[in-house]
This record gives sequence, structure tokens and C-alpha cells, in this order.
Amino acid sequence: MEISDKTRAQVLIDALPYIQEYNNKVVVIKYGGNAMQSEELKQAVMSDIVLLSLIGIKVVLVHGGGPEISGMLDKVGIESKFIGGLRYTDKDTAEIVQMVLAGKVNKSLVALLQKHGGKAVGLCGIDAKMLTAKKVVSEVDLGYVGEVSEIDPSIIIDTLNNGYIPVVATVATDEDGNVYNINADTAAASIAAALKAENLILMTDVKGLLKDKDDESSLIPIVNVSEVAILKKKGIIKGGMIPKTECCVEAVRRGVGRSFIIDGRIAHSILIEMFSNEGIGTMFK
Amino acid sequence: MEISDKTRAQVLIDALPYIQEYNNKVVVIKYGGNAMQSEELKQAVMSDIVLLSLIGIKVVLVHGGGPEISGMLDKVGIESKFIGGLRYTDKDTAEIVQMVLAGKVNKSLVALLQKHGGKAVGLCGIDAKMLTAKKVVSEVDLGYVGEVSEIDPSIIIDTLNNGYIPVVATVATDEDGNVYNINADTAAASIAAALKAENLILMTDVKGLLKDKDDESSLIPIVNVSEVAILKKKGIIKGGMIPKTECCVEAVRRGVGRSFIIDGRIAHSILIEMFSNEGIGTMFK
Amino acid sequence: MEISDKTRAQVLIDALPYIQEYNNKVVVIKYGGNAMQSEELKQAVMSDIVLLSLIGIKVVLVHGGGPEISGMLDKVGIESKFIGGLRYTDKDTAEIVQMVLAGKVNKSLVALLQKHGGKAVGLCGIDAKMLTAKKVVSEVDLGYVGEVSEIDPSIIIDTLNNGYIPVVATVATDEDGNVYNINADTAAASIAAALKAENLILMTDVKGLLKDKDDESSLIPIVNVSEVAILKKKGIIKGGMIPKTECCVEAVRRGVGRSFIIDGRIAHSILIEMFSNEGIGTMFK
Amino acid sequence: MEISDKTRAQVLIDALPYIQEYNNKVVVIKYGGNAMQSEELKQAVMSDIVLLSLIGIKVVLVHGGGPEISGMLDKVGIESKFIGGLRYTDKDTAEIVQMVLAGKVNKSLVALLQKHGGKAVGLCGIDAKMLTAKKVVSEVDLGYVGEVSEIDPSIIIDTLNNGYIPVVATVATDEDGNVYNINADTAAASIAAALKAENLILMTDVKGLLKDKDDESSLIPIVNVSEVAILKKKGIIKGGMIPKTECCVEAVRRGVGRSFIIDGRIAHSILIEMFSNEGIGTMFK
Amino acid sequence: MEISDKTRAQVLIDALPYIQEYNNKVVVIKYGGNAMQSEELKQAVMSDIVLLSLIGIKVVLVHGGGPEISGMLDKVGIESKFIGGLRYTDKDTAEIVQMVLAGKVNKSLVALLQKHGGKAVGLCGIDAKMLTAKKVVSEVDLGYVGEVSEIDPSIIIDTLNNGYIPVVATVATDEDGNVYNINADTAAASIAAALKAENLILMTDVKGLLKDKDDESSLIPIVNVSEVAILKKKGIIKGGMIPKTECCVEAVRRGVGRSFIIDGRIAHSILIEMFSNEGIGTMFK
Amino acid sequence: MEISDKTRAQVLIDALPYIQEYNNKVVVIKYGGNAMQSEELKQAVMSDIVLLSLIGIKVVLVHGGGPEISGMLDKVGIESKFIGGLRYTDKDTAEIVQMVLAGKVNKSLVALLQKHGGKAVGLCGIDAKMLTAKKVVSEVDLGYVGEVSEIDPSIIIDTLNNGYIPVVATVATDEDGNVYNINADTAAASIAAALKAENLILMTDVKGLLKDKDDESSLIPIVNVSEVAILKKKGIIKGGMIPKTECCVEAVRRGVGRSFIIDGRIAHSILIEMFSNEGIGTMFK
Repeated sequence: MEISDKTRAQVLIDALPYIQEYNNKVVVIKYGGNAMQSEELKQAVMSDIVLLSLIGIKVVLVHGGGPEISGMLDKVGIESKFIGGLRYTDKDTAEIVQMVLAGKVNKSLVALLQKHGGKAVGLCGIDAKMLTAKKVVSEVDLGYVGEVSEIDPSIIIDTLNNGYIPVVATVATDEDGNVYNINADTAAASIAAALKAENLILMTDVKGLLKDKDDESSLIPIVNVSEVAILKKKGIIKGGMIPKTECCVEAVRRGVGRSFIIDGRIAHSILIEMFSNEGIGTMFK
Repeated sequence: MEISDKTRAQVLIDALPYIQEYNNKVVVIKYGGNAMQSEELKQAVMSDIVLLSLIGIKVVLVHGGGPEISGMLDKVGIESKFIGGLRYTDKDTAEIVQMVLAGKVNKSLVALLQKHGGKAVGLCGIDAKMLTAKKVVSEVDLGYVGEVSEIDPSIIIDTLNNGYIPVVATVATDEDGNVYNINADTAAASIAAALKAENLILMTDVKGLLKDKDDESSLIPIVNVSEVAILKKKGIIKGGMIPKTECCVEAVRRGVGRSFIIDGRIAHSILIEMFSNEGIGTMFK
Repeated sequence: MEISDKTRAQVLIDALPYIQEYNNKVVVIKYGGNAMQSEELKQAVMSDIVLLSLIGIKVVLVHGGGPEISGMLDKVGIESKFIGGLRYTDKDTAEIVQMVLAGKVNKSLVALLQKHGGKAVGLCGIDAKMLTAKKVVSEVDLGYVGEVSEIDPSIIIDTLNNGYIPVVATVATDEDGNVYNINADTAAASIAAALKAENLILMTDVKGLLKDKDDESSLIPIVNVSEVAILKKKGIIKGGMIPKTECCVEAVRRGVGRSFIIDGRIAHSILIEMFSNEGIGTMFK
Repeated sequence: MEISDKTRAQVLIDALPYIQEYNNKVVVIKYGGNAMQSEELKQAVMSDIVLLSLIGIKVVLVHGGGPEISGMLDKVGIESKFIGGLRYTDKDTAEIVQMVLAGKVNKSLVALLQKHGGKAVGLCGIDAKMLTAKKVVSEVDLGYVGEVSEIDPSIIIDTLNNGYIPVVATVATDEDGNVYNINADTAAASIAAALKAENLILMTDVKGLLKDKDDESSLIPIVNVSEVAILKKKGIIKGGMIPKTECCVEAVRRGVGRSFIIDGRIAHSILIEMFSNEGIGTMFK
Repeated sequence: MEISDKTRAQVLIDALPYIQEYNNKVVVIKYGGNAMQSEELKQAVMSDIVLLSLIGIKVVLVHGGGPEISGMLDKVGIESKFIGGLRYTDKDTAEIVQMVLAGKVNKSLVALLQKHGGKAVGLCGIDAKMLTAKKVVSEVDLGYVGEVSEIDPSIIIDTLNNGYIPVVATVATDEDGNVYNINADTAAASIAAALKAENLILMTDVKGLLKDKDDESSLIPIVNVSEVAILKKKGIIKGGMIPKTECCVEAVRRGVGRSFIIDGRIAHSILIEMFSNEGIGTMFK
Repeated sequence: MEISDKTRAQVLIDALPYIQEYNNKVVVIKYGGNAMQSEELKQAVMSDIVLLSLIGIKVVLVHGGGPEISGMLDKVGIESKFIGGLRYTDKDTAEIVQMVLAGKVNKSLVALLQKHGGKAVGLCGIDAKMLTAKKVVSEVDLGYVGEVSEIDPSIIIDTLNNGYIPVVATVATDEDGNVYNINADTAAASIAAALKAENLILMTDVKGLLKDKDDESSLIPIVNVSEVAILKKKGIIKGGMIPKTECCVEAVRRGVGRSFIIDGRIAHSILIEMFSNEGIGTMFK
């Protein structure tokens, strides 16, 4: 579509109130799913983030990398074992996870952001002791699957203050130096809380929270964290949406302004969510 | 026109390289003509400036106010006398000019910028000795019509660094304390040069420099300052375009990145000029 | 009178304890009345202020300009209508007030201070949203006569920290952008309170608070704010002294060190008040 | 051996002049070889670096990781192909190199430094565009083997100023985003030159430069860079020592105070070199 | 004794945890006794202090100077009169004390520290009103023997922040300008408390607190301040140890981390105490 | 004499241009002679200095103390030996000089300044290696009489920047740690030059440079440094005025704005010189 100069100017002017609102605020974006696999969506996310960063928003990009991990495990001949949807992670797997997340996915995202004109620094939970991990306790042993036991956001703050976009791979060590894989959604929520971020944005492969999971037009645009218990009881929040919702609720409870579940399958969904009145996903406040 | 969210996002992304280019640069805008008389155009300019300021551009707004001066002179019963297109300015007139420019137009612009979400401070050449005036020497005596004899941009720099948009009325005193009216175009050019601005933008009531003054499609988009002499000789630069062109050339010669003559009659012409490839006026470089 | 070098030295040395006391403190001076009309007194006030500023005192100059407003209203043929001593201010009048105060009186004071060696910046309540106005509610409608509904002293603080003397004209807009004339005494009191100033000095055309209004020798040098109610009851504070006294009391109650009503008809009354033991007006503490 | 308190105190006092000499200076250490394979030597190097950092030296740790790369290539079934001692690096290999160096070796060193009480941040050439690579041109195509074409040390300086030890993996991208493996010795030399470091220290598996390569007692303790050409001619500098020597010479020529080739097989060789008069390797100055 | 390079490296590495512990902390050292008389011990103390300062510890050196005072009093023919172990100090004596402490001992220590590579500034309680004295009240009049009535540590903090080692002579004036001699132990304790120092170290001529004063092997290495009352009752703390102990206890009670009584007769006792596990004196905590 | 409030105000206003001129400038005052012996003159000098400091002048006070030195030498029974007007200074004498100047005179001046409301810090040439001395070479050996061989004004600048008045005793050590007595006039000139001071003021016991030494009315108010050679030739500059004049000339030649020889026997001569048009001594420019 040809966009006229007049339309361009109008759009920029329409963006004015949103730019004002977010000026100098911290926004933590959990990047994953389709938006990370499709080459086109990837480019769209990168330019969104560079744009946000240029108009004065302090963006922190947190990422996982399931498919890349599986790919590399395949190559080295380690079979991926899943228990209740979670990858069983033995020592060898943990090492591969660290390499793939902190060495490949992370630094490639840095390079990509820079190709779009940003300046980024790739970090993982180990750097400057940002994240300390502890073993997730569950009925079945999951090996080196961890959760955040302690967080020191200093290095993220330093990186933001030095004018860079911090990109964070969610691997971390425990007190004894064992490496753990930490779920990127929960790590992003912890980081957002530690930074008292304005927004936590989880990019997913669904439209948001739907009243009827088979009807995308039944999107619930806004959820008050106090309503979540009822929505669970009613079965509207269920399955994979339960942990995502919990991340959003937890973040808001710990001081984050608003949390969002947005549809990473739509190009520029971050910009659309942040710079239009309705938004396109589900907002928790 | 209805603009889709997708279009909006695309426009913002298209703006990315321009935002990067202008980040933290100084842009001096001379505001006047139709853009200052039409209520609608006025709002458009104000939102443009607030937007530029929010995305990290240091905007300095310089203004005149001919029609408002004439209006007030009428009210107090002083007849406006023009000599060769320039207003003859006696002591009483100079006093009215000071009041209207520094007291009414200036502060009203400040209020308007703030209504659009900016934070502005209204200054004139007298404040902190920003501009020192001297009498314009011409064949016919023009009274208190001055030109800039000295410039100290400190207060503008302080105001920018404190995070405000400086709005400048171009009245100033000479060494003896006499008040002078200074042409806003030339004052803007002096200020841009003193600030080593990236851009000087003169808002006018013409499309730009035209090869054929009766054919708006004959716009010359880019002029190299070395070509100006020839364009004058050829009669392409003539009449009222001569002083405007000289301001642009002078500014570039004294270190301003680029100067622009743009059409203030088009809404958001500043944004269009700065955020699209072709631009819509004439650029001097 | 010939003053010997020895006397000069002695006077400077005598000033030492006062200079120490006021070092780096904020002093808000409301300038008006005779001291603003007589050319000689005007020069004296300006040099006082520049002196205070040079010896490390942060002076804020707040001014009105009744006579200049009346003069201009005359010129444009608007009749000044007074209701209970207050000028009825319609839209046209408000516009003239803005022009005269913010454009003429204010910038002329800036020029004058600079002629005496200071560096000043002329501001009004509109700049950086320093003052927000609301309509004064009274039995008879006074039009655009406002009082301070909100105050943000940031621009004054920035201006002081950048090393300039802020000169403030007390016009301001309400939330809807209507311009109001605000009484300079009360605005000065509000500003002094917002800055937690050391002193608020109101320059008047009387000697101070007199026990017997017809006997200038009956000056009350010091009034404790707790005594004011009684003094009113006794009729010692009456007429025009009531609002002046209320400004002084209000300022002290909101954190200003001391307030003063001093005699602007005496040259250098500010210096005399601040740099001698007895002072020459009435101090409220 | 039991060390008496008196001896301890004496040693610390003896260290005084060296601590003074290096105070606040930048020291770039290229870490590799045996010192990186033996668990014991590794611990020794880590504590040396933390100590240097604590006594006010700005240490930058640059590392390679040949054996780890080979190990991972084995696991994924890519055969290591060497051409003239250099690993041929195809696209797949380059990806493995990036993962192993930036994801595994780098972050593990960060964790290890932190276990010894330091605070470190793991970076690679991609972060903040620290290193830009270009293909090494040689007779035989080596694939993605690069050299430094551009260097921006800002992120290293920021990291040092924020109080962290920067650990640098020498992978980088070229202008087109292709990933290259850069020789760690030459990268360390470039970084040292860009930082105008006091010292560049290359940890090797030899004693230093030997007059007679079979006689470790024939160590040449000090070499003036002007003598290097003769030493090459004489065949004293030959084989693997040629590129190491060139790094040292190049660094000194570009402003580094002194370069060292030291024996990484000796525990605490860094400390011994820096804090004793004779040193234990070869110094180039 | 010949110390091998390996031993040297090991000692430095052993010092690592102590260096970490004290990094950027304030340590106040009261210097006196034998350590100040023996030329060899003096050199040892000076190099200890310069070392501490270089590895990032903020050292404040407080000193007395009894023997030097006695020496000078002898020279000028004033007989030293002691009452209950305290020197009776008349006006003439106080003047000599000031001269000897602030002019000779103090500045000579500064010169000595600088000879060892430090940068020091000699101060006394008079400078910047650091210490205000009041007369010690006792049964017998002691003349100008004072205690600290007020303390303003600003000049010490400024001196530390400017990168110098402050050396403090404990003479001070009272409100009326009379000069007093203040006991250096108690002044050091006051200074340590005012600076919330990590350590207060009193250098003495005894091994520390001994269970049996005639058996140096009966040293009590650690005393909890709550145990002091009992130790006094038991007669273990007695005689000259009472005031020293009280200084230590008082400092800890007012916020100092730990206080130490150490044996100044042992070379480098400060280093040994601070950089080894057992220490060699008595620690109060 | 009774001074009226009006006179007081006038004097302060008359001081305005001088205050402006000296604002934030460095003024080095060599204090000595009668002004240091008479109790009344002493108080006058102290209040002058505190006043200068309060109105924004950065004053450095440099002093000698001949009579105090002689007094103490008497007390300890060392006979003062003068060779050609200079005191022969053996080791014992040098020690007494250090004690008297740095311990007594210096700190007493600090106390006195503080009694007048200033904040001062007493320094000598030893502190922070401000002055390094070397032996004065002359025909007859003078012992430990030194001149400045090196100057590092950092500690003076730090002290000024921290807001204190530095008071400097001119004793210093040479490279070997020997203490020297340095002439205070020449030390003051060196310090003024190193600080690029605005003024160097030497307080003396004469009126200034006189055309006829027996006629105080023959004062030469202004001397251009280029005229000094002729004045010497003519015998107008002779005797004790030669070294004083040389200090003044040398200072001006090395970048000091103006040097002054003023009459310390007149109370407040510093203020009179600095704050009146004619001045009362001789100015070298």
C-alpha cells in the first residue's frame, strides 16, 4: 500500500500521546514463539525495539529459544525428553542450553538489533550475578530446570544507563555454580518487577486471553488481576495460559505498571499494542 | 481517512532512520506566515514540535508576528508605515512590537506547546543578553529596525539542557538599552549558526524555490549553496526569496548542516520534510 | 557626601554577618509601587538586586505593573473598571495585561538588571507551567482575575541554578488556556513558599505596619504571626494592609523564614532592611 | 609450606611499588593454552585476575577456546579441518565457534571469576559493535576466519567504569552480519592498543622467547621491539612464536606500554610477572 | 629470608579475601607508642598505611606525640607535671603541644607517608572546625586538657574523597578559642564513630588484652563489648588498659564495625592484624 | 563615627563593580609584618579575608612568621644569626621554624578566620607535596634556607573547591626530606603564578613604592613591569623593596593579573585596595 506523506505525518502525530506516556519508562519484552522463528516477524520485532529505544523508552529484551535448543540437541544426538511439557535437563543438556541461548540466540539478536540501528549488549543471568538460580522442586525430577532465587538488576540498569539495549538469555547458575535453564516468561516477570518496569510484554502465539478459546473474536482486552481467580475457576484461563497469566499477575502485584499477553504472529504487534488505544492483546492491570 | 493499525506501525517503522539521524541534534525552526494565522495549521505545527522534542530532537522555535503587531498598532492608533517592504519603527512602535512579540505571541505559543504536552519557556533576545542589536543601516532611515550584532546562545543551551523547548521572540536591545525589532528569519539563522544546528527550517507561504514562480510543480528540491549566485543571476531567486535564500546560505556557510524553505500552508510540513525522503520544500546544503 | 575609604571598608566589614546569614539562601522580592515608578528608585532597586545576587543570594524578582497596564488600556481605549479596588478584567483587558506585564514591564526589568551588571531571564506564570490560575470567586464577577491554583517552581530553580536572576510576571493560564491576571503580592507569597525561601520582601508605598497610621514614627518593627489576629481586631491592621499582611503571614506559615513589608519609597530599602540590625519596615516571623 | 605472618606482611610490603605502578592502569590479558585446560591453573588465573582488579588495576580478559571448539565439533560430527595450522571454518563451524566461545567458555569464565569474588560481564565482539570483522585473505581460503577491521572499545570502557571485569570472546560479525572467528592473540593486541593499555599479557605454553628453543634456561627476559627483525633473521623467533611476537610488537607500536609472553603452565605466572623485578617471561617494550 | 616468587604469589592470593572485605571501607588508626619512636617500626607503619590506601582502603591516621612534647618542653625549660598519669597543661604548655603535634609530628608524618609513595594532608582538630574541645572535668584541675565536645568530620571526608590520606593531630580549640590537648585514643574513637568506620585500630606497646598480664601467651583474641564489664570486675581489664578498652567499646557502641588493640612493637602489626585470620591483638566487636 | 543606613547602602552599591570584577577569581595574599603583630590589625585582616571569601572570591592566605620564630628560638636558647638580612638556618632552627610556622602561626590563623565566620584549612608546603624545596645557593651558606623548585597546587585547588580558605605556611622539604624555610613573599608569588591568580597582594610595613622614600605622599600608584628596570637604575626601587618588587614582577610575568604592594599598617588595607578606584598601595601590571 502506498502511504501518503500526509498520512505519515498524521500517524506520527497520533503517536504523540503514547510517546509522552512511555518517555523514559522501562519496558520488559519477553520475546519468543513464532515471532522468533519467522524471518519476517523477527525483522519486525527488531525494528519495533530499536524504535522504542530511540524515542526514549528503556527496553529490556528477554528471550528463550526452545526450537534452537532442540535443533542443537538433535545435532549432538541428545534426545529431548519432556515431562509434563517441561524439558528434562541433564548436565549435558544444560550445557547445550547455555551455549545455544547465551552464545547463539542471544548474540544473534544483538547483531540483528544493531543491523536495525540499535546498540545492544548480550547478557545472561550469570553476568554480574544478575540471576541466581535454584532447582525447581516438582513431583518428577526435571534435572537442571531452575527458577530465580535472587535477582540483582544492577548490570541491566548500568547497560540501560550507558545507552545500550540489554538482551537477556535466561540461563543462570546456583550457589554451587551449576548451570540452570530458567523459564524465560518467569525470568522476564522477575526482571520487570526488580526494575519496577512500566510494562511487561509477553509475546505468544495466541491472540490473547479468549473467552472462547476457539473464537479469536472473543478476546478479553483488559483483565484486572483481582478477577484472575474467577477466570481460572470458570475455565477461561486454562492450559498453557495458566503460567503466562501467573507471570502477568505476579509482575503487576510486585509493582509493574501493566502486563500484556500479545500475539507475536502479527507483525509489529508490540508497536500496535503500545501505540494504539485498543491494543490487540490482553492487558493485566 | 481511517488508518489501520498495520499502517500506523509501518509508518512508525519507516520513521526509524530519520529518528536515528536527528537523535539529539538541534533544529531551529522559524515560525511565521500562514502557519501562524490559521488555527488549524497552528495546532499542526505545535504538535509537530512537541513530537520532535519527545523523540530526542532539540527544537528551538523562533517567531515573528507581523499581523499581531499591525493589529495592536491599529488599536492604539499608530499607523503602520512601510518603507520598501520594511516597517518604519519609531520608539512607540518599538515598544508595541516588544509587547506584542515578547508578551503576547511568545507566551501564547508557550501555552499552546504545553497544551500539546510539551514544556516550553518563552524568551526574547533581551533575556540573558542572548541577542544584542544594532541599527540596520539603509538608505532610508527605518528607525528601530535592528540586526544581530552579537549573540550569546547560553540561555538557549541551558533551556534545552533543562529539558524545555525554548521559544524566542526576536526583539533585542542595543548597548544603550534601546529596543529593536529584528527580522525573525535572520535572527533564526544567527541562532542556528551559533548553536551549530543540524537544520534551519524557515516556514514560508510559498512552496519553496520554484524554477518558474507561477508553476508550483517546478520546485527545486535541493540547492547547493555554491549555485545560489547563478540562480540569482538567472532571476530564479528574486524578490522576497532573496533574503530568505540568503538566510539559508549564510546559516550553512556558518556551520549549520542544512537549511530549508518549506511551505507552512501544508499541515505538518515540518514532519513531512524531516521524515520523508523527498521532502516538500527546498533544501540548501 | 564624601565617604572615606576607611568608612567604606568599615561598612563592608559590618555587612559581613548579614552576608554570612543569607549566603546561598533564596529571597523573593515583590517589586511594585513608587519604587517602580520613580526612575531613581528603580535604579536603586536594580543595583540592590544585582548586589544581592553577586554576594551569593538567590534573588527572585516578582512584579506587577498596574500603572503601565492602565496606560496601555488608555491607549487602546479600554476604560479601566474597578470593583472594590480590583480591576475588572474582561478578555481584551486580560490580553493587554499579558502583553504589558510579560512583554513590556518584565523584559524591561531584565534589560535594566543587565545594565547594572546582572544576568536575568524574564519569565511569566505560563513558562514551563510555573503557575496555574483559577478564577477568583467573589460576590461580584471580576472576569479574568485569578489566583494560583497550582505551582511548579522547577523553572525558577533551574534559572537560579543556571546562574540567572529570574524575573517573574504574574500572568498565568487556567487548565483551559484562559489568561488570568494574578495579584503579584499573593503570587510572590506562593512562590516564596514553594521555594521555602529565607525571606519574602513586599515593597510598598508605606513605612510598614504603623500603630497609628498617621504617625510614621509608630512603626511596629516585628510582628509574630500569632499576634496578627489581635492586631486586626484592634484595627491596627486594616484596609490595604490586610491583604499584604495576609501574604506575609501565609508565607511564614508555609515555611518561609521571615516576611517583610518595607518602604519602597526609600532608596536601597532592601539593602537597608537586609543588612542592618533594626531594618526599616515590619518583619513577620 | 607454612608461611609466617611476618613473611606475609613483608610480601605485601614488597608488592607496594608494583601496586603503585599499576594503580588505575589497564591490563589486557589473553588467556589460553594449558592455563585454561588444567583445573588448578584455571583457579590460579582467576584469583590472580580478581586480585589485580581489587587493587585498582583495570583488567580485561580476552580468551579463545580451541579445545572446547574441537570437542563440540566432534559432538556434532563436524570434522576439524586445519590448513597451515589454522582451522578451516565453514558456516556451520562458525556457528559452533560462536556458541562455544560466547556461550560456554565466556560465561563459564564469568561464573568462575565471580566464584573467586570478582564481578564480571561476558562480552563478545558483537556486543555494542565492539569488533567488526573482515575475512582473512590468504592463499588458501579459510572460510569464516576473520581479523579485526574496526574496533570500538566503548563497551569495554563502560564495563570497566561500572566496576566489572570485562571478559571478551573474540567472535565478531562483518558488515553483512556473517560471523567470524578471530584469533584471540591478535584481538587482544587490538583491544590493548585501542585502550592504550599499560600491559598486554599473552599466556602461552612456553617459557617465553628462548635463545635456544630446547633450553628453557636460555630465556630472553627483555626484547626491544627494534631488535625483533634481527631476532627473526637469526631464527630465534620462528614458528608459532612469530605471530605471538608480532602481536606484542604491534601492540607496543600502537601505544601499549609493554607486552609480555608468559608461561601459563606456571601457577600465578601473571602475579609473578607483574609483581617481581625479574618477571618470568619475555617482555617487549 | 629469601622469599620465592611462588610464595610471593601465594601470599598475595591469600590476601584476596581481606582486600575484598575492606574494599572502600574507612579504617581509623591511632598511631603512637614504640611504633612511633623506633625508626624501623615507623617505616613499617608508614608502608603499611600506604599499602592499605593503595588497595582501596580509606585510612585516617590519628596521632599523639608525648615524647616529642616532653622533649620540646625540656628545651624551653617547662617542667612536665603529671597528675594521675595525665600531663598538667598550662597555657604555655598548650602552645608547645600545638606546635609540636600540629607543626612537627603531624607534618613529619605527612612527609614520611609521601616518601613511601602516599599522598597525605596534615590536619589538626582546628582545621575546618573538625574538633571542638571542652575542658576535661576532674577532681584535680588539669589545665588545658580537653575532650571532644563536638565533631564535624567533613574535612576528613573531603580529604579522603580528594584521594589523600588525612593525618590528624588531636589539638583543638574550645568555643572561646583556647587551645586544648585532646587524648589521641579518645579522639580517634570519636572520629571513627563519626565516620562510621569499619575498624578502629589502637597501636599500643602491649600485646593486647591478656588474661594474665605477665603471660603474653594468655592473649584474649576476641572480646564482645557486652563482656567488658565482667572482665573489668575480674580485674583482667585494669590500669592503662581501662581507657584503651573504653575507647574500643565506645567506638563499637557508636557504630564502628570492630575495634582493635594491637601490638605496635611488632613490625607490620597492622597488616598482620588485618590480613590474617587470627590477628595478633585483641578485637572488640 | 556613626554611619547612617543610607551611607551603608551607598557603600555596598559602590562596591558592586568590584564584586563583579573579582567574582570567582583567585586572590593570593601574603600576610606578614605589622598587620600580623598588632592585635587590631590582625582582626581587620581576618574579617577582610572572610568577607572576600563570602562574596565569591577564592582567597589563598600565605604567611611567614619571623617574630614568632625569633621568640621560640629565644625560648629554646638558639641564637638567631642573620647573614645579609637572612636568618642562618641550621637543622635545629629549621625544626623550630617548621613547628612555629606550620604548628602555631598557621593553625592560629585558621582558628582566627573561623572566629570571624570563615572555614579554613591550615596547610604547609609539605602537604600533598604542594611545594618542593631546594637549597638557596648564595655566596655565604645559609643552611636550610630554601626556594621553590617544584609546585603542585592541587591541594590548594581542592581546598578552595571544597569551600575552605587555604592558609599556607611556607615550609617544605627537598627530595631527601630535609625541611627548609622558604621566603613567604616568593612562595606566595609562585603559588599565585601556579594558580593563574587574578591578584597577588603583598602586605608590607611601607606605604608602597615611593618616589622619595622619605615622603609618603610620593607614592607611585601604578607600575608597569616593563618600567621596573629603569626604576631600579634610578634607585627608586632599592633595598628591601627589590625582592618585593621582583616577586610582583615575576608573578605578573608568569600570568598573574596584577600584583600589589600594600600597607599592612592601615586597617582593612586589602578591602580599600580592592574596592576603591585609586587603591592605597602600588600596583604592578
